Amino acid sequence: MAKADKAGGKTERPKPDGPAGKLVAIGEHVTQQIREGESPTIELTVRSLSNVVYDEDTQKLGVGDKTSERSFFNVAHAKKFLQTLEVAAIAKSLLDIGKHASLRDVFYMAKRTIPHTKVNVVDEQTESDKAIEDLEILTGSTREQLNINANKMGSVAGNVVIEDAGDMIDWSKLGSGGWSIPSNVESITFRKVSAKYVLYMEKAAVWERLHEDKFWLKQNCIIMSSQGQSTRGVRRLLQRLSTEHKLPIYVLTDNDPWGIYIYSVLKYGSISLAHMSDELAISDVRYLGVTSDDVERYKLERHYIKLTDKDLARLEQMANYDWFKDHAEWQRQFKLMKKAGAKVEIQSLSSRGITFISDVYLPEKIRKQEFID
Amino acid sequence: MAKADKAGGKTERPKPDGPAGKLVAIGEHVTQQIREGESPTIELTVRSLSNVVYDEDTQKLGVGDKTSERSFFNVAHAKKFLQTLEVAAIAKSLLDIGKHASLRDVFYMAKRTIPHTKVNVVDEQTESDKAIEDLEILTGSTREQLNINANKMGSVAGNVVIEDAGDMIDWSKLGSGGWSIPSNVESITFRKVSAKYVLYMEKAAVWERLHEDKFWLKQNCIIMSSQGQSTRGVRRLLQRLSTEHKLPIYVLTDNDPWGIYIYSVLKYGSISLAHMSDELAISDVRYLGVTSDDVERYKLERHYIKLTDKDLARLEQMANYDWFKDHAEWQRQFKLMKKAGAKVEIQSLSSRGITFISDVYLPEKIRKQEFID
Repeated sequence: MAKADKAGGKTERPKPDGPAGKLVAIGEHVTQQIREGESPTIELTVRSLSNVVYDEDTQKLGVGDKTSERSFFNVAHAKKFLQTLEVAAIAKSLLDIGKHASLRDVFYMAKRTIPHTKVNVVDEQTESDKAIEDLEILTGSTREQLNINANKMGSVAGNVVIEDAGDMIDWSKLGSGGWSIPSNVESITFRKVSAKYVLYMEKAAVWERLHEDKFWLKQNCIIMSSQGQSTRGVRRLLQRLSTEHKLPIYVLTDNDPWGIYIYSVLKYGSISLAHMSDELAISDVRYLGVTSDDVERYKLERHYIKLTDKDLARLEQMANYDWFKDHAEWQRQFKLMKKAGAKVEIQSLSSRGITFISDVYLPEKIRKQEFID
Repeated sequence: MAKADKAGGKTERPKPDGPAGKLVAIGEHVTQQIREGESPTIELTVRSLSNVVYDEDTQKLGVGDKTSERSFFNVAHAKKFLQTLEVAAIAKSLLDIGKHASLRDVFYMAKRTIPHTKVNVVDEQTESDKAIEDLEILTGSTREQLNINANKMGSVAGNVVIEDAGDMIDWSKLGSGGWSIPSNVESITFRKVSAKYVLYMEKAAVWERLHEDKFWLKQNCIIMSSQGQSTRGVRRLLQRLSTEHKLPIYVLTDNDPWGIYIYSVLKYGSISLAHMSDELAISDVRYLGVTSDDVERYKLERHYIKLTDKDLARLEQMANYDWFKDHAEWQRQFKLMKKAGAKVEIQSLSSRGITFISDVYLPEKIRKQEFID
């Protein structure tokens, strides 16, 4: 907090631009209130589900206009107010020295005892995580732009050359492993992008299958995966390829509610990060498979796995989301899955031969443009 | 199975070498028995815990000499016998076409219905996984050498150049992401290894910390991580760097029973893969931290996290493992952890400053050679 006050208090100094400048503005706002004898107060957009709205025009989740005030001289707010400013000071110091920290690091950096008390600024990581979300709203910057990273996961290969941290990296020349996607992709520069589309899949094992079959070379595309739900590094990388290079993103997941939700998060944004949809949601995402129709066409019924009660509840929930409930094709898919009472994994295609997915399934579906939008 | 019989039945053909040759030998052995009117039988080393032994000389876990027979004309054995031969045929076909499959792929490839019955060769992945373990024992080859891969995870950076799948890859020139470690590292060739040691850590976020601080450049080392328990790709990569390039491996984990077990698996092998210790266990692994002594020296007590009942039970179990029970230093560590009733995470070092781990903690510990062997 000391650092933020100091930076905010001296208006004659040249002000930093970008996220750092916005952090300084928060400090200035607070110190101004103090000088004028007012109770230091910040105004925040409400982030609970009640304020998450689906915008039909942009096709993205977003936050509504409900706001709440947080005041230092309100016993119920004082600690959260302090936490937000403490984390703002930490983010500012990270930006100043050009270093990045993980969410867990920020927790430990904020976990100091307030002098002359036995009270810690934060006791649990959820508290510093919430404060970071506050800052995302207050500054309009993603936490990655505040030099705070989530976890790193995922691999990529394809006809692309990037520049990152002073290195030129050719995604087509990285052997069987590919490039390991960092948690933060804000500072990479695309030097050459000759691929025609991006194929994103939820499973690392499927990525290795396609990579071994040189799918990206034959199809002139980019193949990318994380494992399970996409990391933020992956989402931003996909989003940058979509907006900066106009590449369509095709998503390949299991035919189950969880796989379809991976697609949903990529396209519409996620409920918990609705305030960041502009930076993270990608309108030009298309669902490639696996669909209920594929199950019939490629005779995968014998690989059906019975839906659990949890799967069924999730399916029901998905069918009622604002962005799915009037979508005829998705409603049809949900109905077919419910009728079958079963899900199917991507890898069941291996029963047709190990390279069936690369040689037949994907080229056929992409040629026929069999997507769900 | 058809393929294995065919390959095994024609002795005049040139026999393949290596793992494929060993698979053919299994087929020949079985067809020979059939020709001689005997019940087809294979002999397998028992893999249950009762047959896992710790070898004090080699300091590795291994399997004892208990064996069991599996006969086709024994109702209790028939299906497992079939599964083992089915998976042998799948592995042989993968080796023949030079393709790799994941454990899940192999499951789907084996999941066919036996003609004129309603019985599937396998119904659950655990069955094909067990059959793959059988083959590891029968052929003395890892499943990776049989072209069957586990999951892919992890990143690496450092002063190393490798050749893999026709590409030259410089681990020092891969930006902030690093090289994504494949699930199978059997076919990579080390072209230049000028690093002095390998630092392996359990957390991807700590890897990103050290990478941003150019720790591997300043220290001339290799930094490697997966997330949580090491994948087999990571273990084999570490093992190859240890045996082929005599690099010491330093392990950095949380100070808790799970972190110490990550070290234990790397050094001594794992109970479930005891039959593969020669290929996977690495004697020259040293535990670098975090230790209970570090907690005191670097004043991390305030970041103690209380041990749960599960943690305490695991600690007790670890202290009684053959390879730890007479190890004075580990017994001391276990006692200190139990006395504190608490664990400490690597990232608590961030409370001393974001680059404290790179600038002070690690260089100091490595210079003073403060390892646990």
